[in-house]
Parts: sequence; structure tokens; C-alpha cells
Amino acid sequence: MMAARFVLDARLEADSVFIADGPLSQFRLMNDARYPWLVLVPQVPDAREWIDLPESDQQSLLSEINIAAKLLRENFPCEKINIGALGNIVRQLHVHVIVRTSQDEAWPGPVWGHGKPRPYPKSDLNSLLQQFKTSFA
Amino acid sequence: MMAARFVLDARLEADSVFIADGPLSQFRLMNDARYPWLVLVPQVPDAREWIDLPESDQQSLLSEINIAAKLLRENFPCEKINIGALGNIVRQLHVHVIVRTSQDEAWPGPVWGHGKPRPYPKSDLNSLLQQFKTSFA
Repeated sequence: MMAARFVLDARLEADSVFIADGPLSQFRLMNDARYPWLVLVPQVPDAREWIDLPESDQQSLLSEINIAAKLLRENFPCEKINIGALGNIVRQLHVHVIVRTSQDEAWPGPVWGHGKPRPYPKSDLNSLLQQFKTSFA
Repeated sequence: MMAARFVLDARLEADSVFIADGPLSQFRLMNDARYPWLVLVPQVPDAREWIDLPESDQQSLLSEINIAAKLLRENFPCEKINIGALGNIVRQLHVHVIVRTSQDEAWPGPVWGHGKPRPYPKSDLNSLLQQFKTSFA
């Protein structure tokens, strides 16, 4: 029997852009200029719940959340980091790490399900990706 | 100089009920019958962001999230666990662990900011607390 293989969920792929591979997860930038927003997708086949990962993978994910959140705080004004693992719509395990400020349009509510994403202008997206990729180089 | 002391945020205290003390956090039940919902509050003075806790406390919190989520799954029908550390309104660090089903009123959106809490009838609250406390005894 062939082992299951990690395949990125199609909706995550459409809504976000690849930055880098961490030890466990893909680091991806949500293509939504309303909030600096990273998504971590553990490259574990069929993973759905954080708590069902093996303990070592859970700790890798926590370590990657630290990296993502610090990367965001270093690059953007930030009043609060929001961290969320929901997965009610996209079941493939993914963790959101989002910069929030009292000026953002969903504040103080959660970003999920609030309004419509506003894709970055292409040049902004490219320079932001470049900026993030440099941190992983 | 006296060291800062942990004091539970007044809003968390009003919205939730004490279940037990873990190694790091208070385990509390949100008094909202719409969703089985636990809140973990690390008893660390002035803590705001998960990623700013010392690494050992971060790992304790992750371990307590596992305990909370498994406790919920053992006791309630569950399609998805939602885990969130937001803190846009209550700044004291707290982590939500919530049972979601496709029948709940906020599905598939997030629970935060959705409608009004529906407090448990007193007898239900007491028996639920008893049920949870037994797991910690």
C-alpha cells in the first residue's frame, strides 16, 4: 500500500501564496491586503487537528508559529497577534497568524468571515514575498 | 519591589466559570450553552501573547490545550475543534478551545462576536462543571 502523500488543499492554494518551507509546515502569505496574515500548513498527509499530530510535530508547529508571529511583528505595526486553528471550511490542518490593529476593518472582531479579501496589487505582493523570503534565506 | 501578581481579568471572570487549575493555566468553562467551550488562562502576570511566554510555559500551554480539547471531544459530539488566541478585546492571554458542529449557530464561521451568549440553566451548569471537575480529580 502506498503511503498517503501531502497535497495542499485547493482553496488554501488559491487564497495564499507560498513563502518558504519550514521543518514541518509551508509558510504562506494570505493574499489579503487588509491584514498582514500568514498561514502555516503542516505537510502531514490527512492532518486535520493540531492535537492529533504526534507530539514532536505539535512542538514544531508551535515553534513555527513563533517564527511567523515574530516575522510579522518585525515587519508591521501590530497591536495584537491573532492565532487560530479553525478548519470549519477547509479541513486540512492550517494555522492562521495574523497582525491586528485597532485600525483594521474587522477590529476587534475576528478576521475570518469578515467582508471580502482585498488581493494585493501584484507589485506589492512581489515585494512583500521578497521581504519574507529573505528572512528564510 | 513587589513582583506582579496574576489577577484574572474581570470580563473573563464574568463570562466563564472555574473548573480546575492546571500546571500553568486556569481551566474555565464559558457560560454559553451554544457551544462546549473551554478557556485556558495562563496564570502568568501581565501575559498577553502566547509567543512572549517563556518556551517552557508555551509548551505547558500546548499540553493544556491537548487536555482541554480531548476532554471536550470525549464528552460532546464534535466535528471540529477550534483553537484560538485572539485577545483583541480582553488583553490578558487566554486560549479558546471550542467544540464545533455543523448544527451550531455560528457554523462555519467563528464563534467570537457571533450573536449573544446563552447562559446554561443553573442545574446544567452545575452538572457540567461536576463532570469536568471529575476529570481533574
